[in-house]
Amino acid sequence: MSHATTAAAPAANSMSFERWLASRGQRTEQALERVLPAAATHPARLHEAMRYAVLGGGKRVRPLLVHAAGEAGGAPAAALDCAACAVELVHAYSLVHDDLPCMDDDVLRRGRPTVHVRYGEALAMLVGDALQALAFEVLAAAAAHGAAAAATTAMVVELAHAAGSIGMAGGQAIDLASVGAALGREALEDMHRRKTGALLRASVRMGALCAPDAGAAAEAPARRMQALDHYAEAVGLAFQVIDDILDVEGDAATLGKTAGKDARHNKPTYVSALGLDGARRLAGQLREQAHAAIAPLGEAAHSLACLADLIVARKS
Amino acid sequence: MSHATTAAAPAANSMSFERWLASRGQRTEQALERVLPAAATHPARLHEAMRYAVLGGGKRVRPLLVHAAGEAGGAPAAALDCAACAVELVHAYSLVHDDLPCMDDDVLRRGRPTVHVRYGEALAMLVGDALQALAFEVLAAAAAHGAAAAATTAMVVELAHAAGSIGMAGGQAIDLASVGAALGREALEDMHRRKTGALLRASVRMGALCAPDAGAAAEAPARRMQALDHYAEAVGLAFQVIDDILDVEGDAATLGKTAGKDARHNKPTYVSALGLDGARRLAGQLREQAHAAIAPLGEAAHSLACLADLIVARKS
Repeated sequence: MSHATTAAAPAANSMSFERWLASRGQRTEQALERVLPAAATHPARLHEAMRYAVLGGGKRVRPLLVHAAGEAGGAPAAALDCAACAVELVHAYSLVHDDLPCMDDDVLRRGRPTVHVRYGEALAMLVGDALQALAFEVLAAAAAHGAAAAATTAMVVELAHAAGSIGMAGGQAIDLASVGAALGREALEDMHRRKTGALLRASVRMGALCAPDAGAAAEAPARRMQALDHYAEAVGLAFQVIDDILDVEGDAATLGKTAGKDARHNKPTYVSALGLDGARRLAGQLREQAHAAIAPLGEAAHSLACLADLIVARKS
Repeated sequence: MSHATTAAAPAANSMSFERWLASRGQRTEQALERVLPAAATHPARLHEAMRYAVLGGGKRVRPLLVHAAGEAGGAPAAALDCAACAVELVHAYSLVHDDLPCMDDDVLRRGRPTVHVRYGEALAMLVGDALQALAFEVLAAAAAHGAAAAATTAMVVELAHAAGSIGMAGGQAIDLASVGAALGREALEDMHRRKTGALLRASVRMGALCAPDAGAAAEAPARRMQALDHYAEAVGLAFQVIDDILDVEGDAATLGKTAGKDARHNKPTYVSALGLDGARRLAGQLREQAHAAIAPLGEAAHSLACLADLIVARKS
């Protein structure tokens, strides 16, 4: 996974971002490995399939956002691990269900057979269901790892709202209903704000909620949360715009999933709405908006700025 | 919904249990109505289907257990509403997913077409996913309704663990794998302890966690939780034994769902393991165990005792 350097960031910081990425990525893999039941735990086939769905692949964009946003507020790393795993487990469950025959009917994910191809449809559904439950179990453990109990219940609300009918699941329902429809720019943005944006935004907000001053009725945490919200909004949309561009430009080998499926399924995308050049321009603008939003946070937000660049520059 | 009177309970208490049942049942319906997004809320079809899945039917056994267990410890009613709704939403989601073609492939539930028959398979899956998320969102709100923040995070762990791969979803995975297998009594109990017992037990424990002294390192709440745990264990198994008996004895009109499906699917049941008389005897013994477990709690546990009777005497 490569990254684009920001114009503003000096070379030393850019190097340290590379190190930061590797470190937080490794932390996340270890934490996921730890919170998932061992493959031999009864019922073993379910646990093996849950591990298959979560481990061995994935860019871990959401955990990285949790860590970057949390560190901007001085949050303890162990609490951030809980939030990072929780949001990644929700993301992983959504991919398993999304790939099912009754949804996108996809056979390839991260270069491997999808969960239902490998373990059957019924077990794949249970894998998704169990991963969602595990996400909340892991998140609640943040209270025992340095997050305040009140902040932990706030994170549960944040994650549940982002995953639920107003957020991600709602976005997927809109997506289902919009196949073959010509969505306008506004309706398209509403769909993506729910489908992918809500969980990305929750990642940033959950990171911020782990900060020791998050619950205080003070100006600094409130200003920080507002800056992070604007950042998350821009990054969330940029993520989707790039997804749509990659769906057209990418090939299955790089993407690790079936390319061109949105166009084939006649789904509305940013590319179909704005053209390829228009979509690229929009991604660039959103990247600038993300940078501008966190400028007041100064050096503490350096990883967040680099992550925005990374999300826009990604090739898969 | 009728109930059996206990031998020990005087008539006046029995009358007051009827009133208690009606009151807590009504509270639960109103609370569920309130926490579910309105059917007109965007995306409307998803929200309409979520309401269809949850409202208009259901015995609300789990919410009743939450209230009865909570009241035995003096828990605030508003916090119990949150826990009661949360556990019922998890139960409702599990029915929606369980009815899907890739699982039990059922077309009738509570006398009406199942969610996927009415709204399609893809939306039914999203209904289940969104209901699970909503459960945790509603549960976290207990912290704002009289439960301690620490008790609220403990309830999240409780519910997530009961719903997940070690509990309900795990039980369903074992069920899937056991079709056509001759499970011994022990393996059968293990499956049911997870599939239905875990959530019933969580209902009782979550109610107890709403009590004002639940977090205190004192003897009374610890003894109460232990008594309730033994009660929940017996009631959970009794519930499943009766389910198996009704699957053989009941007819679709009374059950509101397809009768005889377990036998037809060649699933192991208590009736196939113990015979009809043996299963009935076991249900009676479990009812006695439930009563004995909560005897030390005295009059405060009256509703719990009556609920155990009700669960064993139920006809649907």
